[in-house]
Amino acid sequence: MIPVKGYAVQNATAPLDAFSFERREVKEHDVLIDILFCGVCHSDIHQVRDEWGGSKYPMVPGHEIVGRVSQVGSSVTKFKEGDLAGVGCFVDSCRTCPSCQEGLEQYCEVHNVATYNGFELDKKTPTFGGYSNKIVVDEKYTLKVSEKLDLARVAPLLCAGITTYSPLMQWKVGKGHRLAVVGLGGLGHMAVKIGASLGADVTVLSTSPSKEQDAIDLGAHSFAVTKDANLMRELRGSFDFILDTVSAPHDLNMYLSLLKRDGTMILVGAPPEPAGVAGFSLIAGRKRLVGSMIGGIQETQEMLDYCAEHNIMSDVEIIPIQEINEAYERVLKSDVKYRFVIDMASL
Amino acid sequence: MIPVKGYAVQNATAPLDAFSFERREVKEHDVLIDILFCGVCHSDIHQVRDEWGGSKYPMVPGHEIVGRVSQVGSSVTKFKEGDLAGVGCFVDSCRTCPSCQEGLEQYCEVHNVATYNGFELDKKTPTFGGYSNKIVVDEKYTLKVSEKLDLARVAPLLCAGITTYSPLMQWKVGKGHRLAVVGLGGLGHMAVKIGASLGADVTVLSTSPSKEQDAIDLGAHSFAVTKDANLMRELRGSFDFILDTVSAPHDLNMYLSLLKRDGTMILVGAPPEPAGVAGFSLIAGRKRLVGSMIGGIQETQEMLDYCAEHNIMSDVEIIPIQEINEAYERVLKSDVKYRFVIDMASL
Repeated sequence: MIPVKGYAVQNATAPLDAFSFERREVKEHDVLIDILFCGVCHSDIHQVRDEWGGSKYPMVPGHEIVGRVSQVGSSVTKFKEGDLAGVGCFVDSCRTCPSCQEGLEQYCEVHNVATYNGFELDKKTPTFGGYSNKIVVDEKYTLKVSEKLDLARVAPLLCAGITTYSPLMQWKVGKGHRLAVVGLGGLGHMAVKIGASLGADVTVLSTSPSKEQDAIDLGAHSFAVTKDANLMRELRGSFDFILDTVSAPHDLNMYLSLLKRDGTMILVGAPPEPAGVAGFSLIAGRKRLVGSMIGGIQETQEMLDYCAEHNIMSDVEIIPIQEINEAYERVLKSDVKYRFVIDMASL
Repeated sequence: MIPVKGYAVQNATAPLDAFSFERREVKEHDVLIDILFCGVCHSDIHQVRDEWGGSKYPMVPGHEIVGRVSQVGSSVTKFKEGDLAGVGCFVDSCRTCPSCQEGLEQYCEVHNVATYNGFELDKKTPTFGGYSNKIVVDEKYTLKVSEKLDLARVAPLLCAGITTYSPLMQWKVGKGHRLAVVGLGGLGHMAVKIGASLGADVTVLSTSPSKEQDAIDLGAHSFAVTKDANLMRELRGSFDFILDTVSAPHDLNMYLSLLKRDGTMILVGAPPEPAGVAGFSLIAGRKRLVGSMIGGIQETQEMLDYCAEHNIMSDVEIIPIQEINEAYERVLKSDVKYRFVIDMASL
């Protein structure tokens, strides 16, 4: 077994603290990655605090991982020692169900192995995430990372990037479309960058007037404060797509009213409580409310390649792992532009 | 002006009663239709009782109208005296907005003129519906009706038929698809007939075990009682499409769980209160919750032609207009198979 250092929580109310554990030896198809950076996703906090239920402890969070390959299994072909590599929200899946066969492993109908807070396919070995210095992953579930970009800023692409890229690609959002992005956080700021790069006319919808300049700086073409009822009335029926990244409770019907006929509102954030959706909000304009969850391995690779080609990276604040508990508090106050990334050299 | 006899309500709590009023003279593009039959839609009751707000009185309900043309305007080309004709949920629209230009007049962005409980384009002349012996409508908003079918059974196609046909066509439901129909009322029984005729494998989902034989007789391939929790667990992830015709409050999340990945749930019934939709219900399988509202004139004509070709008609119970108030009570108890149709000869 391979000794690993990381940070873990022992229960739903404990702070993250130093934790030593072991990873499996490198098997035939595995790569061992020395983790350089790991992004801090809001869902880390939900799971650390058991806000979605079913959390397993001790828990080492982290699913926005970039690092350098330090050992490869005997059959590995995609990586060699010294290569950059990335790991996202899952590290294995059944590989045989229709979703896996179609490259949509995130929807695996049998067992998608979450990067942390899950179990391996044996259903008993717990998985530990990227708030640690090493990880062993099957090469099939490991992404190639370009040497061209700033690695710390690439890490959040593994979740925030693919979560917004995938639905924009699925719905073919691009030139000639008006796209509204709801919420300007870790996901939202990536949606603005990717949406604008695809040629869409991007509007940021936010409750905070103070975010206007930031939205424009990120590439948005316009900005609207959702508390301005007159402005919201003016914007009725104006968007082809709304990408909703907010996981706090909010009124979907107001946003649905902003869609054109046949418009699509895409949920990627999951509020803890069900949201009230009025039938007429969808029926009266033949509108669509749809969901999307991260992306498959092939699409994640495409996203990383696309971002390398278009020089798209997350805006981040780099922290040593010792500041992670403080960082969580700041995430909860939306006090970060736009993603914390842990520099694993601090371990 | 043309004197007309009908039935109206004078306020939200009054019963329907005999009412005399006038229609406009037949203008250049108008047809005068002697109404033979008019279907009774659940939305008639909602509007009569002002359950959606904004009802206008006196109100002559009825938007599932078939009859015979008795006079045509000087420029009318589509009809001649003696032709059968149908009128659905609207009798005019702005004709210039993008939705009207695309033949989707039901989503007119300026002014869709409801067949009753609305105003003409002048915004002041009230419209009166099909619970009456004559109606004057622009030929553009009047449908051709085949002589081949039983007219009383054709009337409900003008609302219940097109409401279910339109989304099945939009989403290309057919061979190789598993379609669930929620609710076996006026809309649901048409969804079963049309869905089966398109080649879909149709399952009726109902709270009432007693409806099983009827569902099969209507053309459904299977039937499932939604109160059977074990059965609902078994059916998880099994449908490509769910067409939800229920306008009473119900839990959408349970139904969404029955969809396959990338499955689509179509709402055509509008419950009075917003329904709680959990983000994960859509996100976890990239599912879609969409709406659809009746259909445009061209598509309504296609639907009528399709039904004539495939011998599809509504199952109806014919009543004299004097029994309309009793019929409403029975609709509210779902005590009708499956649509009341008023025989206007009773007037």
